[in-house]
Amino acid sequence: MKKYALGVDIGGTTIKMGLFTTEGKLLEKWEIKTRTQQDGSFILSDIAVSAKNKLKEKGIELEGVEGIGMGVPGPVDEHGTVLRCVNLGWGVFNVEDAMSELMGGIRAQAGNDANVAALGEMWKGGGEGYQNVVMVTLGTGVGGGIIVNGKIVAGADGAGGEIGHFQMKKDETEICGCGKRGCLEQYASARGIARMGRLKLEADQRESVLRDAETLTAKAIFDAARQKDEVALELVEELGEMLGTALSFIGSVTNPEVFVIGGGVSKAGTIVTDVIQKYYEKYAFHAAAKTPFALAKLGNDAGIYGSVKMILQV
Amino acid sequence: MKKYALGVDIGGTTIKMGLFTTEGKLLEKWEIKTRTQQDGSFILSDIAVSAKNKLKEKGIELEGVEGIGMGVPGPVDEHGTVLRCVNLGWGVFNVEDAMSELMGGIRAQAGNDANVAALGEMWKGGGEGYQNVVMVTLGTGVGGGIIVNGKIVAGADGAGGEIGHFQMKKDETEICGCGKRGCLEQYASARGIARMGRLKLEADQRESVLRDAETLTAKAIFDAARQKDEVALELVEELGEMLGTALSFIGSVTNPEVFVIGGGVSKAGTIVTDVIQKYYEKYAFHAAAKTPFALAKLGNDAGIYGSVKMILQV
Repeated sequence: MKKYALGVDIGGTTIKMGLFTTEGKLLEKWEIKTRTQQDGSFILSDIAVSAKNKLKEKGIELEGVEGIGMGVPGPVDEHGTVLRCVNLGWGVFNVEDAMSELMGGIRAQAGNDANVAALGEMWKGGGEGYQNVVMVTLGTGVGGGIIVNGKIVAGADGAGGEIGHFQMKKDETEICGCGKRGCLEQYASARGIARMGRLKLEADQRESVLRDAETLTAKAIFDAARQKDEVALELVEELGEMLGTALSFIGSVTNPEVFVIGGGVSKAGTIVTDVIQKYYEKYAFHAAAKTPFALAKLGNDAGIYGSVKMILQV
Repeated sequence: MKKYALGVDIGGTTIKMGLFTTEGKLLEKWEIKTRTQQDGSFILSDIAVSAKNKLKEKGIELEGVEGIGMGVPGPVDEHGTVLRCVNLGWGVFNVEDAMSELMGGIRAQAGNDANVAALGEMWKGGGEGYQNVVMVTLGTGVGGGIIVNGKIVAGADGAGGEIGHFQMKKDETEICGCGKRGCLEQYASARGIARMGRLKLEADQRESVLRDAETLTAKAIFDAARQKDEVALELVEELGEMLGTALSFIGSVTNPEVFVIGGGVSKAGTIVTDVIQKYYEKYAFHAAAKTPFALAKLGNDAGIYGSVKMILQV
C-alpha cells in the first residue's frame, strides 16, 4: 500500500477534492468549479490538473499515490461505467479508465455519489465500526447508499440505493423530477418537506408560526415543531411515517446494522432520526425492528472519504 | 476441493437431503421426517446419521466430503447462529458448529431456507449465469432471498430478504401471522391470494366461475383468469400491482440482474411473472425498470442445491 490517496466528489456546481494518507487521515481538502460546458468534457482534466498541482505543492510523487476515487452524481455500474450524468452533461463512458489515463496510470475508481458518501460514513462517520450500513441522504433530493459486507451495492444498472424514487403514494397528483408520481423524494427531500408544509397550510385555517415564515423551509418546520407548533408537529410525524415506512422495506431487504441519516435536512438533529425510528419500529419486520439510527458525521466530506475508501478496498 | 458435498433443506415436516459432486451434479436425493419432539433436539443427529448411512451405502469416506450445507426455516446470522426456529422448536445456538461436530469435523454451513433457495436458483436454476439475484417465493407465505455478488445477504439480524412482511396496506383490518397488519404475505401468498378472492366474491354479486369452486385456491383463480373470468382477471391484476410495487422497492435497493419467482403459486407459470413485471415496470425507478423476470426451475430442490453452493463458496 502506497502512502497517499486522492478522493474526489464531483457535484453539479463544485468538485470537492481531498488528499489523504492511506490510513485515512485527511491532509488537505479544496474545491474547484465544475465546468459543465461542452458536455462536461473538461471535468476530468480539470480534476487531474488540480490533483497534480496539489501533489507538486506537497512534494508528493505520483508513484506515492495509491489511486484516485470519485463520487459521481449519477448511476455508475460496478465496472466504473457512468450511465449518463445529466447534471454534468456526461453520456455513457468508463470514467475510471479515462481518469486513470489522465493520472499517469494510477488506479481510479468511481461510484455513485450517494453510495460513495455512504461508504465514507461507514469508514469514518456515523456508521464507523459497522460493515452493513444504509445511509439516507435527505437533501435537495433523497438519496441512498447500501453497504453490504463493507462494499457498495452498485446494482446491475447502477440503481442500487436509489430509494428516493420508492413509490409511496399512488394517488399523488404532482409529478416528480423522474417523471413518475408519488416518489419518496416528493415528501422527504428538503423541497418535499416544504411542499407538504405548504399544502397543509392551504388545507385549513389553523394558526401556525409557519404562516409568518418568509419562505417555508424544512428548517422552519423543524424549528416550529420544537416550539410545539401544532401544524409543524403534524408535518414532522408525517415525515417520520413516510420515511419510517420506506426504511422498513430496506430493513427487510438488506437488514443493515445501522441506518445513517445525512443531508441538509439531517442538520435539524435527533428530531429527524427520532421520528423516523419511531415509525420504523412500528412498520419493520420484528426481527429487524431494533436497527439503530445515527446521524451522519462527515457532512460534505463524506464523498471524499468514501472515494478514498473505494481505492483502499480493492 | 474434495469430490463430494451434502445439501440439506430442513422443513417443519420433512428434511430434504442431497448428495452432490462438488461440480454441482446431484447424485441422489432423499427425505427423512422432521422430528420436532423435545425442542427439535433430534433433528441434527437424524441428519448426521442419515448422511453417514448414505455415504456408507455409496462407499464414500467422510474424508472425501467437502462439507454439509443446511437451509433452516428461520433467521440465521452470517456466523451460522440460528435465532430461534419456531417450526423446529429450536432456540438460539450455532447450528454450524453443532453439525460439524456430528459429522466428524467436516465443514458445515447454514442459511435461512429462502436465502439458500435463492442461492440454489442462482447456481443451477432460473438465475443461472447471474451473480445478483432476488428470488421471491410465493408459497404458504412469501419469502425472499437477496444475492449480491454471488453471496447471500443474511442481514444483521438474519432478516435479509424477509420481504413477506413489507407493510403494503395501512388500512388492513386482518392480522398477519407476524402480528402486524397489511403485510405483503397477506395478499400475495397462496393463502393471501385465496383470501383476496373470497373478499372480492363477498363484495358483490357478479357472476364468476370462482363461485362454483369447491375450495377457492390461488390455482383456481389463475385457471379462471385464463378462461377470462372477469373477477379472476381483476384478482390477478391486483396481485401484480401488489407484488410489482413491492419488487420495485427491491429494484431500488439492490437493483438485481434478475428476479426469480418461485414457490407453489409460480407453478401457474408466466401468467404470474408477466403480471408482476407489468406493474414492476410501472413503479420501478427508470434506471432499474428493465430487470428481467424468470420462473424458478429447481422446485423443491432449490434448497439442497443452494446448501451445497454455500459450502463451495468459502
